[in-house]
Amino acid sequence: MMRTSKLWSGAALLAVMGALGLSSPAEADEGMWPFNHLPKAMLMKKYGFDASDAWVGHVRRSSIRLSVGCSGSFVSGTGLTLTNHHCAQDCLSRLSSPQHDLVQRGFYAQAASDEKVCPGYSIQQLGEITDVTARVQQATRGLAGEAFHQAFRAESARIEKECATSDQLSCEVVSLYHGGLYELYQYRRYQDVRLVFAPEIDAASFGGDPDNFNFPRYDVDFTFLRAYEGGKPVSTPDHLAWASTPLMPNDLSFVVGNPGTTQRLRTVAELEYLRDHELVEELIRLAQYRGFLNEYAERGAEARRFASEELFQVENGYKELRGEHESLLEPAFFQRLVAREQQLRARVNADPTWKAKYGGAWAAIAEAQAKAASMSDEMDWIEGGFRPLWAKTALFSWARTLVRGAAERPKKNEERLEEFSDARLPRVEQRLFAQRPLNPSFEISKLTFGLTALRERLGTDHPFVKKVLGKASPAELAAALIKGSSLEKVEERKRLWNGGQAAIAASKDRMLQLALAIDAEGRAVRSRFENEVESVLTKNSELVARARFAVYGMNSYPDATFSPRLSVGTVRGWRENGKWVPAFTTIGGAFDRATGRAPFALPKSWLDHQSQLALDTPLNLVTDNDIVGGNSGSPLINRQGELAGLIFDGNIHSLGGTYGFDIARNRAVAVDARAIKYTLDAIYGARRVTAELSANGKQ
Amino acid sequence: MMRTSKLWSGAALLAVMGALGLSSPAEADEGMWPFNHLPKAMLMKKYGFDASDAWVGHVRRSSIRLSVGCSGSFVSGTGLTLTNHHCAQDCLSRLSSPQHDLVQRGFYAQAASDEKVCPGYSIQQLGEITDVTARVQQATRGLAGEAFHQAFRAESARIEKECATSDQLSCEVVSLYHGGLYELYQYRRYQDVRLVFAPEIDAASFGGDPDNFNFPRYDVDFTFLRAYEGGKPVSTPDHLAWASTPLMPNDLSFVVGNPGTTQRLRTVAELEYLRDHELVEELIRLAQYRGFLNEYAERGAEARRFASEELFQVENGYKELRGEHESLLEPAFFQRLVAREQQLRARVNADPTWKAKYGGAWAAIAEAQAKAASMSDEMDWIEGGFRPLWAKTALFSWARTLVRGAAERPKKNEERLEEFSDARLPRVEQRLFAQRPLNPSFEISKLTFGLTALRERLGTDHPFVKKVLGKASPAELAAALIKGSSLEKVEERKRLWNGGQAAIAASKDRMLQLALAIDAEGRAVRSRFENEVESVLTKNSELVARARFAVYGMNSYPDATFSPRLSVGTVRGWRENGKWVPAFTTIGGAFDRATGRAPFALPKSWLDHQSQLALDTPLNLVTDNDIVGGNSGSPLINRQGELAGLIFDGNIHSLGGTYGFDIARNRAVAVDARAIKYTLDAIYGARRVTAELSANGKQ
Repeated sequence: MMRTSKLWSGAALLAVMGALGLSSPAEADEGMWPFNHLPKAMLMKKYGFDASDAWVGHVRRSSIRLSVGCSGSFVSGTGLTLTNHHCAQDCLSRLSSPQHDLVQRGFYAQAASDEKVCPGYSIQQLGEITDVTARVQQATRGLAGEAFHQAFRAESARIEKECATSDQLSCEVVSLYHGGLYELYQYRRYQDVRLVFAPEIDAASFGGDPDNFNFPRYDVDFTFLRAYEGGKPVSTPDHLAWASTPLMPNDLSFVVGNPGTTQRLRTVAELEYLRDHELVEELIRLAQYRGFLNEYAERGAEARRFASEELFQVENGYKELRGEHESLLEPAFFQRLVAREQQLRARVNADPTWKAKYGGAWAAIAEAQAKAASMSDEMDWIEGGFRPLWAKTALFSWARTLVRGAAERPKKNEERLEEFSDARLPRVEQRLFAQRPLNPSFEISKLTFGLTALRERLGTDHPFVKKVLGKASPAELAAALIKGSSLEKVEERKRLWNGGQAAIAASKDRMLQLALAIDAEGRAVRSRFENEVESVLTKNSELVARARFAVYGMNSYPDATFSPRLSVGTVRGWRENGKWVPAFTTIGGAFDRATGRAPFALPKSWLDHQSQLALDTPLNLVTDNDIVGGNSGSPLINRQGELAGLIFDGNIHSLGGTYGFDIARNRAVAVDARAIKYTLDAIYGARRVTAELSANGKQ
Repeated sequence: MMRTSKLWSGAALLAVMGALGLSSPAEADEGMWPFNHLPKAMLMKKYGFDASDAWVGHVRRSSIRLSVGCSGSFVSGTGLTLTNHHCAQDCLSRLSSPQHDLVQRGFYAQAASDEKVCPGYSIQQLGEITDVTARVQQATRGLAGEAFHQAFRAESARIEKECATSDQLSCEVVSLYHGGLYELYQYRRYQDVRLVFAPEIDAASFGGDPDNFNFPRYDVDFTFLRAYEGGKPVSTPDHLAWASTPLMPNDLSFVVGNPGTTQRLRTVAELEYLRDHELVEELIRLAQYRGFLNEYAERGAEARRFASEELFQVENGYKELRGEHESLLEPAFFQRLVAREQQLRARVNADPTWKAKYGGAWAAIAEAQAKAASMSDEMDWIEGGFRPLWAKTALFSWARTLVRGAAERPKKNEERLEEFSDARLPRVEQRLFAQRPLNPSFEISKLTFGLTALRERLGTDHPFVKKVLGKASPAELAAALIKGSSLEKVEERKRLWNGGQAAIAASKDRMLQLALAIDAEGRAVRSRFENEVESVLTKNSELVARARFAVYGMNSYPDATFSPRLSVGTVRGWRENGKWVPAFTTIGGAFDRATGRAPFALPKSWLDHQSQLALDTPLNLVTDNDIVGGNSGSPLINRQGELAGLIFDGNIHSLGGTYGFDIARNRAVAVDARAIKYTLDAIYGARRVTAELSANGKQ
């Protein structure tokens, strides 16, 4: 499955902090278009499609962003929301117990009152977009390094705070076109999200890791949630009608969703570093962790239950990075990226004014990149994002949030670490206070694994390693930290959050004490990174972006930023090793592929109904829509603006989409809307859900 | 520790089969010199050292090669042999039981009759070297592809058979200087090797994986074995006297041993493939397996005992490959290799005769390399070396040896797969019939891991995967194969070996049946590889070697071939990040570094004696001798030809030595001979061993 968008974690840090790009003029179906920059003329010319304000506004308001890094859409007037099963897996896990494993069994709320709150989930629906470029550029004019970074952060925090006037609104300054454009995105926010229906994971992820990112495919990777407010389903007048006519081969198809991150305009220096170092490092790390998790799951049923969600994330991320890495290793593909940069630089250098303004940006980026490389181990292993790489336990995330929140909240809004700005605090609190069952043995094993890796990567004699481990072995320390912490109790986290610095200082919680003891080291490495690397990259990436505007004009799309975008495409297969891969699979295909052994074992519900099913019902399909991770759960929409499918994956070639789009081979993979409704009816008997959909299908 | 030499396995296959190189004229202490091509003039000129025939003959006959891919030396007149603890670990494991874990406890044969046979071990002592270049080149003249390969193999088999006139002799045609020279190495072979003394692993590998390939270091990584024949210790008049004067900083030092493989003359095309694909692939694979093994060991004491030897191999190999990979990623280092090739090619192209003869070799190698890349997955996962990559169980190795042996032995010597030639059969039988205790649960887990990886790498729909797995899950099949096999019984293996094809065909052994069922697939991919890749590489690497002879003359050393070599060096530290790392550590340093927690826990024997020890006794030292994996266990020799130390590792920079030698940073790591004798005396009270050494020290 497409990885859900990584917000700020581990090796992706550089990617996210680095450069958000602007592509060269898009050809064919390439592109992830912001709603206020749609290629309306192209749509009319190429497809004879009129992207009217009414059509655009409707699909935009019907589509949502999920806090777990996914996309989705409203599919009824009362907040019913369609997304992927793999986007709801965190919710299913948290609501499970040894006796009721919702991941394995699936879930169906027979009555409205059975719908269960998904801990920590929220839904965002895009409202206004406001251009704030002038304000941001005014605030940072003439600044560099730390001053640039501070001013940029302070102004963003101010803008976001002015916008987020209530807990129901969340606001983000989005840097588009590499800082060529800054826009304020205001979202309507729903903090009470409940689970309505989910199939069994064996049907949702049939084929498991082996079939992941492959096609032909046979997955019902869907789940229904519902947005609530004040204990009641919200009213969603804008929602997608269920398609009255299905998508067929060669039909025009749209995807609305939140592609996470693309790197299509990274400079060659940055891409080489990614290819040769960062991706390799991350792959090796994930491979080892994967080996550990797989074997940990063999300890027993409970171990498997806890390990499997994490294993899914790891295997999915691993496969995704493999694909990305392989695409960068393909000489022809990489050469295209090199040639594009050379062309742009030649055009810039040919014009004395442009050369003076923009010509130095590439060298500056290469230099910052080299500096980033020299800092990357300490960034990953001491600071990380929400937690350094060795602390794979939620207990450390909570501890760090508590320690830092206590230190940051008393400061002025503009002076805080950006994740604690007023506009973002509601989300921080929601995460911190969400229920999450932990298995102490699993947490100890994960932390042991991580502390061992910390020692290996930074070295036994690194001062930070000595400070953390002392004379203890990784296993001893991990056990002491996990057993000596009470942070798994929501009430304790609330007490410490509300108690502020005094409560933190008085606490004897071992994990909290560790987070406190190493807080200064983390802040120091982060601040050095922000001032010496991030600010240089931001500033110079902006110059590259402006150079591109100057040379090619602005009729292009920005790199993905996990904000809502529209992608235009066509339903069609592709040629693989000389053979045509057709665009559709059927429910019968799933039965043909099933061996009865995981991950090729269909659940009992399917086997029980096999003889009564219409096996030629379309199940999955591919389109050439340009999507990446973060698009998981996106609606696949027909000309009529109806929901015709549900994006849940890309084929193996689509993984190169992070760096460039190849229309010959990149394909998005979706569940056909017909399969969703048919299985709800014929296998699951989920009439309460289908009734809600049907009503809308006829609207 | 330096990895023991990989003979023929996995991703190293290409390396071994590929090109054995010839370096440019060696500077300073660089070089691994064959005994019949020593740089005597350089030794006299630079060190004023007369490498007399007597001196050379003595150290040569005193040094040995161990069948487990290590080196060693005779240190008494009655076959006492010194090598590394990590070279004897396989023996220690095989002789262990849950009640007597010799790896943990160490071993000391109080009386001669307590010395225990190491299953499968043999010792080879180099005898005659004969130039057979003319014969080999005559046999292959004018041939290419399959015909070249067949003729080459047949002639080698003939030469080796003529030479190996008894079971006590083993013979190998060694291709030196990329086939510029073929030499026949005849070894005296001792098939009965027994364990005399080994310290506890906590002392031998103190610092474990974290300190591996690092220095300062504090390991007594030594073990004493003894060569037997006819149930009696063999007489070894040539053996190394224990050093009467120790090595000191800046002293001249020699290493005699069997460096496994270097790639110092691989073409740039080959090195790029290694750097970008092969090494990355292997690292990812090892990382995942490492994660699995580490967690498997948590199942309990028996699981840990079985997993730990394999874990040691995996962690060691992983770290070694990391170092190799990082050296190739260093731009300055790689650029040097590129420049060297460009220089040679420019010289070749400047001379019309040379150009006509050699000029096309590089392109031919690049083309064969590309073909090798396209075949590498099937080579690794279907054929492999002794076993394909998914079959990590000895049961499959045995099964394949039985199946193939039965098919090959009836053939004429020259027509067999090379590993079954008459000259090699004694070794095959020794390995096959050696006792090796297996833990069925561990074998099932390893095979499950491997079969899952097979499916992932070749793809669920690959015909070979379908043939192997059928509808079974990897876990099901692994359990059925392991439980359905009796090959763990030596008697059963003997019965099947002696019974030949009839016995194989009649057997119901599941593992044997699998090996039989997939034998044709393995042979097919191997034969395609040999005919289309290996023969092209052999032929064209020979052309590159001749070009180098033509351009630079022959005063240089060949790439390592796991045959005996002499390395010349100096005892000295190096500068690391501006700081000087001194050449020696002391026993006191080990106590300073100890935390009491593995892998920094010293054994009880050391702690009990701590107060009586002379803590300033030298423990480990570094020299700039040019060594690589396979040199493990090599004697470190002073001017007097005495044993002054025992090579057991290289520093982290030495790992780049596979591709090129950097005298500023590459260091060999050794146990000081004083530490060996001192700990035997003061900690272990192993008087029977030290008495034997002392007697010789005074000779």
